[in-house]
Amino acid sequence: MTSEVITSEPRLVRSVQETQSEMTELILPNDTNVLGNLLGGRLMHFIDLVGAMAAYRHSRSNVVTASMDHIDFISPVHVGDLLILKSSTNRAFRTSMEVGVKVWVENAVKGTVRHVASAYLTFVALDRVGRRIVVPELKPATSEEMRRFQDAGRRREIREQEQKRRRSNQSE
Amino acid sequence: MTSEVITSEPRLVRSVQETQSEMTELILPNDTNVLGNLLGGRLMHFIDLVGAMAAYRHSRSNVVTASMDHIDFISPVHVGDLLILKSSTNRAFRTSMEVGVKVWVENAVKGTVRHVASAYLTFVALDRVGRRIVVPELKPATSEEMRRFQDAGRRREIREQEQKRRRSNQSE
Amino acid sequence: MTSEVITSEPRLVRSVQETQSEMTELILPNDTNVLGNLLGGRLMHFIDLVGAMAAYRHSRSNVVTASMDHIDFISPVHVGDLLILKSSTNRAFRTSMEVGVKVWVENAVKGTVRHVASAYLTFVALDRVGRRIVVPELKPATSEEMRRFQDAGRRREIREQEQKRRRSNQSE
Amino acid sequence: MTSEVITSEPRLVRSVQETQSEMTELILPNDTNVLGNLLGGRLMHFIDLVGAMAAYRHSRSNVVTASMDHIDFISPVHVGDLLILKSSTNRAFRTSMEVGVKVWVENAVKGTVRHVASAYLTFVALDRVGRRIVVPELKPATSEEMRRFQDAGRRREIREQEQKRRRSNQSE
Amino acid sequence: MTSEVITSEPRLVRSVQETQSEMTELILPNDTNVLGNLLGGRLMHFIDLVGAMAAYRHSRSNVVTASMDHIDFISPVHVGDLLILKSSTNRAFRTSMEVGVKVWVENAVKGTVRHVASAYLTFVALDRVGRRIVVPELKPATSEEMRRFQDAGRRREIREQEQKRRRSNQSE
Amino acid sequence: MTSEVITSEPRLVRSVQETQSEMTELILPNDTNVLGNLLGGRLMHFIDLVGAMAAYRHSRSNVVTASMDHIDFISPVHVGDLLILKSSTNRAFRTSMEVGVKVWVENAVKGTVRHVASAYLTFVALDRVGRRIVVPELKPATSEEMRRFQDAGRRREIREQEQKRRRSNQSE
Repeated sequence: MTSEVITSEPRLVRSVQETQSEMTELILPNDTNVLGNLLGGRLMHFIDLVGAMAAYRHSRSNVVTASMDHIDFISPVHVGDLLILKSSTNRAFRTSMEVGVKVWVENAVKGTVRHVASAYLTFVALDRVGRRIVVPELKPATSEEMRRFQDAGRRREIREQEQKRRRSNQSE
Repeated sequence: MTSEVITSEPRLVRSVQETQSEMTELILPNDTNVLGNLLGGRLMHFIDLVGAMAAYRHSRSNVVTASMDHIDFISPVHVGDLLILKSSTNRAFRTSMEVGVKVWVENAVKGTVRHVASAYLTFVALDRVGRRIVVPELKPATSEEMRRFQDAGRRREIREQEQKRRRSNQSE
Repeated sequence: MTSEVITSEPRLVRSVQETQSEMTELILPNDTNVLGNLLGGRLMHFIDLVGAMAAYRHSRSNVVTASMDHIDFISPVHVGDLLILKSSTNRAFRTSMEVGVKVWVENAVKGTVRHVASAYLTFVALDRVGRRIVVPELKPATSEEMRRFQDAGRRREIREQEQKRRRSNQSE
Repeated sequence: MTSEVITSEPRLVRSVQETQSEMTELILPNDTNVLGNLLGGRLMHFIDLVGAMAAYRHSRSNVVTASMDHIDFISPVHVGDLLILKSSTNRAFRTSMEVGVKVWVENAVKGTVRHVASAYLTFVALDRVGRRIVVPELKPATSEEMRRFQDAGRRREIREQEQKRRRSNQSE
Repeated sequence: MTSEVITSEPRLVRSVQETQSEMTELILPNDTNVLGNLLGGRLMHFIDLVGAMAAYRHSRSNVVTASMDHIDFISPVHVGDLLILKSSTNRAFRTSMEVGVKVWVENAVKGTVRHVASAYLTFVALDRVGRRIVVPELKPATSEEMRRFQDAGRRREIREQEQKRRRSNQSE
Repeated sequence: MTSEVITSEPRLVRSVQETQSEMTELILPNDTNVLGNLLGGRLMHFIDLVGAMAAYRHSRSNVVTASMDHIDFISPVHVGDLLILKSSTNRAFRTSMEVGVKVWVENAVKGTVRHVASAYLTFVALDRVGRRIVVPELKPATSEEMRRFQDAGRRREIREQEQKRRRSNQSE
């Protein structure tokens, strides 16, 4: 967002576990359209909030959303359902972090749980006056965490290539 | 709330674990007063929601709040804090359940977590037209769950005595 | 909440009447669950707001909720109902006040009014930087106000005993 | 709104007192603009709600807002203020009612109360499928109520003349 | 609202076009009553917001609502409808502006659009500490804009006469 | 979302213009974090709403969000800013539509407008009981509309390839 970067002390190290966050939402009439379906934008709002929690716990500073990757809404969510959202940091770059979010819908009456969506968001850490700050490193501990760490690196490259392509299209 | 009770098949049995629920809330300016303190009523609203989730998962039916025991707000909660709420069913009676809720506040910047409040709520299970229904039994598995199960029985007796006392005061 | 107390000039005296507050809420779809029942947590939120008004009028300073006593939800409230809430200060202690709240539901179509809940809350008065301040005394004027004043003293003793009991349980 | 009218039994009679309604709102950050001023539209929303309560109590049926007369916002309202709104029915016509609303702002810290706005709204009563229904008559009891009753008649004539004028302007 | 006025540099001139604003709202269950009708107060809130946008673009400063003229709700609005609101400044006075708002409802399923309401609001421009400031002049460009400019002058006279009449009534 | 498809009469044809939608939002304290920055999730919610309007106008039926492509938040948005969102349908497939959304932030005080984000969403049209229905075709009229139409086809291929890749990863 802004270009200034404040360099702080030798970078701290954070584990994936320290960043894990979880939200459960009971879907109320307030969150739905005329058919009783959860609004897509409400779902994105919940995803952004639980993602921000992981980035907040990682950076221990205010964060703002920088991007969200392609997201599919696989299963519909209805009024009365429980929405379960889990997040954790996949990788920390210099002043930004990639966070993964996974969402399930639980129909407590039927006792069923289905996968709704998976999302990758990047967040940027800010100090109290809104300048970007360097975030702690993430140290993956398990092979699953290592796989996510490496995938986050690949996704970052794709994002940067895409950004370059879009900018060159605009300047033509 | 309503007096009709629908008796269903032989009662199912539910474990405490099946009812465990967890919410995390990022406190936004929207939730606070002029001083940036979380409104007590917003906190009670979150406690009621996470409590309802445990009762919903226990009964697999719609639930309504029947009562909440005395609650102290031990630590203040500020805008920017994370609120962590956990709930589970302590005991099932015939058509009602006692749910325990515990709340912590996390200051992600400082990395501190403090206890905010503990609450006991009772919920009643309703069918689709709003009549009370019989709920599954709760089977405590650990010694901790057994202690909560027995305490819930004692609290119920106190509630019933209190209710009688209040009614007799009113009829005087 | 916080331990510092700012002592001000010789304590003012307030009458119960000066603190009386009243709210009426039209229950909208927004406030209800799938069955059209008012959410318990929304009701607690309204109770906390109307209680805070009485404490605000008593102390003429910002207030935060310190506790709420046991509360029963006696009658259900539905979408389209009117909720009537009345509050006044029962007694002032040094930096806290006990407020009583009574709630009725009016079905304007049928022209009926029923009692929904009664609640006792304590509030603490804060100055602009969040420190506890001494509040005016409450001077009961009628025999009814005197009864409430004395009951508030008894309830305070019970709360303090309960708090001690819980703390000693925790330290065992 | 709709043209069908359902004629019911011999018209009931309602007193002004039966329709009196009162709301108090604590202005939270949520209701204000960047300067901490209550948004004009939020204030109109509160006025409409308290007005609808009086019309609802008068007609004992669902109501929709048909019009609001010119309104001046005389005093500013700030975050932390208490807003006090009072309403009652001034006169009932065949299927509509004129309701008067008066609004004050109380600064509880300073102990001051100022007049914010006065408004006249008309509401139409609807049955369950949305057709206009005949409402009870209003019988003024005091000389003040009689004055409002007569003023409401005059305001209605002005509204009807204005409406004709606007329609003839449009058809030119 | 407040009486102090800050005089700034030689007054700028703004065109009607620079102030034109447009909002579209999808009516959700959240905005409606039990019958699924848009609440009158929600509609007024949307009108105030889109009106404030035109005044904000005209004055390039914070604005507060000073008054709204008589408004009729001609067509009902239901859940699932699209509400289309357009506003522009009609005339600038010294520290206030008259803004015109027109509202339509679109039933996207049927492909119909109907006129819902027209409103005239006045807004006052404020500096950062809440004092009234002088606003740019409005220069009408088309004959339609000139007609609105002149009508705004006439409406202002009527408002001032009405205000005098009300004040003299109060002082009697 | 659901697999059943209801085939209707010979497909209608819709122009891009018929689907164009526009929203303006005044960013209030309610929409922001502690630093006064618009929450990423609120922005996504607005993008989803304005996108749904274009799909609603295209299909003239209820719609639900099926996916959103990668989105970058290029410029920060602050409390007091105006957010301008424009949408139109890029291409209709059998039961789904791709909608393009572009977002700008206007600082009315400074008179500046900056690009905030661009998004591509797909929506699915549903009948009253929630089954997918065939939507009208989109006929691009200008060369710009034709370019978007063709790009939408390419983006769809990429989405389908990505979906296959993800599914095969999961089944490994």
